[in-house]
Amino acid sequence: MKKTILLSHGGGGEEMNKLINDTIFRAFDNEILRECNDSAILPNFGGELAFTTDSYVVTPIFFSGGDIGKIAVCGTINDLCMVGAKPLFISVGFIIEEGLEFAEFERILASIADTAKQCGVKIVCGDTKVVPHGKCDKIFINTSGIGQILAPNIKAKNIKIGDKILLSGDVGRHGAVILAARDELSLESELKSDCKPLNGVVGELLASGVKVRAMRDATRGGLSAVLNEFAEISGNEILVFEEKIALSDEVVGVCELLGFEPYELANEGTFVAVVANGDEEKALEVLRKFDKNAQIIGEVTGTAKSQNRVIIQNVYGSGRFLELPKGELLPRIC
Amino acid sequence: MKKTILLSHGGGGEEMNKLINDTIFRAFDNEILRECNDSAILPNFGGELAFTTDSYVVTPIFFSGGDIGKIAVCGTINDLCMVGAKPLFISVGFIIEEGLEFAEFERILASIADTAKQCGVKIVCGDTKVVPHGKCDKIFINTSGIGQILAPNIKAKNIKIGDKILLSGDVGRHGAVILAARDELSLESELKSDCKPLNGVVGELLASGVKVRAMRDATRGGLSAVLNEFAEISGNEILVFEEKIALSDEVVGVCELLGFEPYELANEGTFVAVVANGDEEKALEVLRKFDKNAQIIGEVTGTAKSQNRVIIQNVYGSGRFLELPKGELLPRIC
Repeated sequence: MKKTILLSHGGGGEEMNKLINDTIFRAFDNEILRECNDSAILPNFGGELAFTTDSYVVTPIFFSGGDIGKIAVCGTINDLCMVGAKPLFISVGFIIEEGLEFAEFERILASIADTAKQCGVKIVCGDTKVVPHGKCDKIFINTSGIGQILAPNIKAKNIKIGDKILLSGDVGRHGAVILAARDELSLESELKSDCKPLNGVVGELLASGVKVRAMRDATRGGLSAVLNEFAEISGNEILVFEEKIALSDEVVGVCELLGFEPYELANEGTFVAVVANGDEEKALEVLRKFDKNAQIIGEVTGTAKSQNRVIIQNVYGSGRFLELPKGELLPRIC
Repeated sequence: MKKTILLSHGGGGEEMNKLINDTIFRAFDNEILRECNDSAILPNFGGELAFTTDSYVVTPIFFSGGDIGKIAVCGTINDLCMVGAKPLFISVGFIIEEGLEFAEFERILASIADTAKQCGVKIVCGDTKVVPHGKCDKIFINTSGIGQILAPNIKAKNIKIGDKILLSGDVGRHGAVILAARDELSLESELKSDCKPLNGVVGELLASGVKVRAMRDATRGGLSAVLNEFAEISGNEILVFEEKIALSDEVVGVCELLGFEPYELANEGTFVAVVANGDEEKALEVLRKFDKNAQIIGEVTGTAKSQNRVIIQNVYGSGRFLELPKGELLPRIC
């Protein structure tokens, strides 16, 4: 019989201690975690802090290009990067359904540990709850993160007319992978989620001297949501050029089959950066080192009719509004 | 028809924005949250930081003396207090089952906001996921917290032979309330969960000059789990006196009816403090200001046979081992 997670693994007694000490601590081991206090004690690293949280409920928990563990670490690391912070510490909270295969849990732990290690981030505190069969779906993970702000004042409010908009790669792959997996589409292609940490590219972008106004990773709601938030928060109109937005053939195929708009599909390792006019080529050079699909996709415009909206122009020069997504979209995408 | 949470409330589009802006931000409003960045930006407050996380899956979500919102804030605030930190900032992550009544969600939000306000803690970042009906149970909440360490070096490792052990109140009330609610026991009594924030009493204890070695709130696994962890981590034997451990008649009644050990029942606002020999009366005086049931319950002993274990002695002088709880205990207690 396969070893599974039991209710007693979350009970606060001997079995939970054993799971935490023998399995979780072994995977995430570091000197802060090993102290076993009610809270982790972190050194004072000076300057402003960035603090973020996200819960992950993605289904399926293993997908092409990633798994719920990898996405949980990348998502929180990326949220710290987006405000100009260097990710340092993360917490991991598990809610596990009774009966989850132990081997699956260990695979997720290894994925979390690998991703954190790759980013130089320590997992310093955590929590494990087990709920009866049928009261959650396999596993939900919360990660919260703390980072040190390296470049202050990166926020959507600072976006100005004339700024240029860059996109770090092609869009829609994570959403398309999850859609394809749930519909059991057998794609001949090698469609993979873009799920990845952005600390490398963002660190280099900030170090390059480019004047970065704002960054946001295009997760739930996709590129459309990010551009609309930027327009809304900054009070400007944004113009993007459709032919500049990279899409893989596989994403286009899934969208045509299932009737989705690729700009609304979630991404998990692709971000939008707004930089000062004149700095866009330098920024693009950095982004291209990490992804050849990076592009300058548009600019912040300020015509008299400006109404905090996003216009997307096709190759023939005709424009339409790119609206904030509405409706159910795709539940449990991340 | 009653207004409920829909899948679209978690989709990343217009409906989610509306829920977050009109309902959640309104309840938790502060200047950091209002910035709407991917991460909250926190000022540098100097010194070491405490960082902790917990997920809450308690059922029922409303119970005598509290609710899942109150417990989510108290639990994280208390974990920060237990390492000598002043709680400053918390994150709140919701996983909501499609169909949760909107009014229930608003009641939970109000409870979170009230508890945080009462403790002088700001809610600075959050996340909302909605999963289809049947994929979680009403609502799960994760809170993570950041505090400023005021009294360094409070940890179980520092516990020494001769130290005295104090308990801040009577034990088992939270566990008994949840047990009684699930078994639909109609208790004539006014049994209430002890769910409450400990920042007041801990702040005063630290300011009193008492030499505090370690503190731990007796949540899952109850008093037994805390004492066993202290014995294990410090490598000492702990002796406690049964008649010094306060129990309400209601808790004794529930335990007798359902066959539970009160020392293994969860608490959500009761903690164990280990203080230097000679400081126990001063510490007791502070604890009694907040709860008349506070007691000095025992001491750290170091006989030759010392084996990292906990001995509980009854009023007739005969002792037994108080073991780390085993088995399922009580799932979804917090």
